[in-house]
Amino acid sequence: MVYIGIDVGGTGIQIGVVDENGRILAKGDTPTLVGRPFEDIVRDMGNCMLNTIKEGGFTTADVAAIGVGVPGIADNQTGNVIFCTNLGWTNVPLRTELQKYLNKPVYIDNDATVAGFAESVCGVSAGRHSSVFITLGTGVGGGIVIGGRPWSGFHGIGSEIGHIPMDMNGEPCTCGNYGCLERYTSATAIIRMAKQQVLQHPDSMMHDLCGGDLTKLNAKMVFDAAKEGDPVATKVFNRYADNLAQAIYTIIAFLDPEMIVLGGGVSKAGSFLLNAVKERLPRYLIFKTLPYAEIEIARLGPDAGIIGAAMLGRN
Amino acid sequence: MVYIGIDVGGTGIQIGVVDENGRILAKGDTPTLVGRPFEDIVRDMGNCMLNTIKEGGFTTADVAAIGVGVPGIADNQTGNVIFCTNLGWTNVPLRTELQKYLNKPVYIDNDATVAGFAESVCGVSAGRHSSVFITLGTGVGGGIVIGGRPWSGFHGIGSEIGHIPMDMNGEPCTCGNYGCLERYTSATAIIRMAKQQVLQHPDSMMHDLCGGDLTKLNAKMVFDAAKEGDPVATKVFNRYADNLAQAIYTIIAFLDPEMIVLGGGVSKAGSFLLNAVKERLPRYLIFKTLPYAEIEIARLGPDAGIIGAAMLGRN
Repeated sequence: MVYIGIDVGGTGIQIGVVDENGRILAKGDTPTLVGRPFEDIVRDMGNCMLNTIKEGGFTTADVAAIGVGVPGIADNQTGNVIFCTNLGWTNVPLRTELQKYLNKPVYIDNDATVAGFAESVCGVSAGRHSSVFITLGTGVGGGIVIGGRPWSGFHGIGSEIGHIPMDMNGEPCTCGNYGCLERYTSATAIIRMAKQQVLQHPDSMMHDLCGGDLTKLNAKMVFDAAKEGDPVATKVFNRYADNLAQAIYTIIAFLDPEMIVLGGGVSKAGSFLLNAVKERLPRYLIFKTLPYAEIEIARLGPDAGIIGAAMLGRN
Repeated sequence: MVYIGIDVGGTGIQIGVVDENGRILAKGDTPTLVGRPFEDIVRDMGNCMLNTIKEGGFTTADVAAIGVGVPGIADNQTGNVIFCTNLGWTNVPLRTELQKYLNKPVYIDNDATVAGFAESVCGVSAGRHSSVFITLGTGVGGGIVIGGRPWSGFHGIGSEIGHIPMDMNGEPCTCGNYGCLERYTSATAIIRMAKQQVLQHPDSMMHDLCGGDLTKLNAKMVFDAAKEGDPVATKVFNRYADNLAQAIYTIIAFLDPEMIVLGGGVSKAGSFLLNAVKERLPRYLIFKTLPYAEIEIARLGPDAGIIGAAMLGRN
């Protein structure tokens, strides 16, 4: 039997036929074209799924289940997507609609939860009892796995790690609260801090890397300049690493998983970031002599969305 | 079969014979007398346990297992207590030592975890899939239950909810970090805020309630004055209720349990506190229209320690 994994993004929908070990056997994609009626998006999704199955040399009889990762909140009782801000979806019956194209069990979960689950099936946290995955991108998402199973909360509104307050008197967040964790640990936070610094220090290497156009400054440029020893970029990088270490400490103090996995665009910095965070983490730990979570960089890259979604059906 | 539950505190050790439903069938206690050698404390514990069994009309053959709740961190692999600051214990072999008095399986866990587990066995969160228990006392402790089982972390260092940062630039905490949640949500926080206010407003009712001696001011006096409409106490109470609502929001955003249970001395304020927190919570929630955890006051009181410890053995 095989499992269909569908990763729904704001730009494209990635679809894979996946075996029970999380290996992708066939892949397809179709543009999301946000703004269309929900039924039209699901029609393209359904047809792309059927094509991918066929082109991979499988039949619909080989398919055990379908899993879908969405950038939002889903209710697995009803199979409805409750909120998907990027897609403009509110209470859409995704399961019912998708089953019109292939009548198999459909499981839906948050994209960060699904990506974290993929890492725990066949990525860096494979075989670990428990893990928390953090996506460090434009925002910050979280994926919790406990006892080998994804946990997005009893009501499906948990693992919103990006919106835990780190500074209740801090900066306003898009969610309406103040000082949320993603204000300090996202790629957006790096860019915001770097811009402030470049304005004060126009001699920074970051100024050259973005061609003098601060609207083009991105997190990679900041890290690249820091690697080269640029003092202003190093200051931003150190501040960011401190923030991320505190965020990781929060996960340890609350849930103490076996492993914490860093994913998303910022995690591409690899060992440069990982080493800086690991070096800073112990200063925040309460029990300085006791074992705590291993911290690792995610391994599956963009395929994590397909794999994790497919594996929802295996569970 | 019956289960022994032992609740080890800084002043006294409470011991109970408990049935499989969490009902206490016999009870005993012995002073802790902190400062003595560890073996002496466990000798009194062991003898008190044997007496309690006998006086309750049971024999050691009736006992299936022993559970111990400690104000610290334990390793259930080795049966050692790793840290118990109040007792001055570091790496003490509690299981081995206790088994000299009664050779049964011994399970050890943190006291807040154990109390939360008790509530989930036969207290306010009974039958709930998942819950987070918060003890609001001198400090703030946490007890996580997921899938009906206590979770104190993979390394046993989790559920330290009191030490999650709420304000990373905030007040220094005894743990070495800044702005920990317990700085804003403990009884100590209420007293600290109230003292500052009374110094500025000596006409507050709180001044009279403590007989003009601010060292005698406690959280109950602050809440009593707030209930009577004292404006200065009301200000402190409102600030505290805001802090607690944010702490509860943090638990929802991270773990989204089915229920959140408020325990510890401060929770004795009952519906006066509960209603204020429930009223404030929605303003922090990201998904304002979706269901979220029920918030309740703990029901078992001081017996929770014995019951939860005993039920560790039933699991």
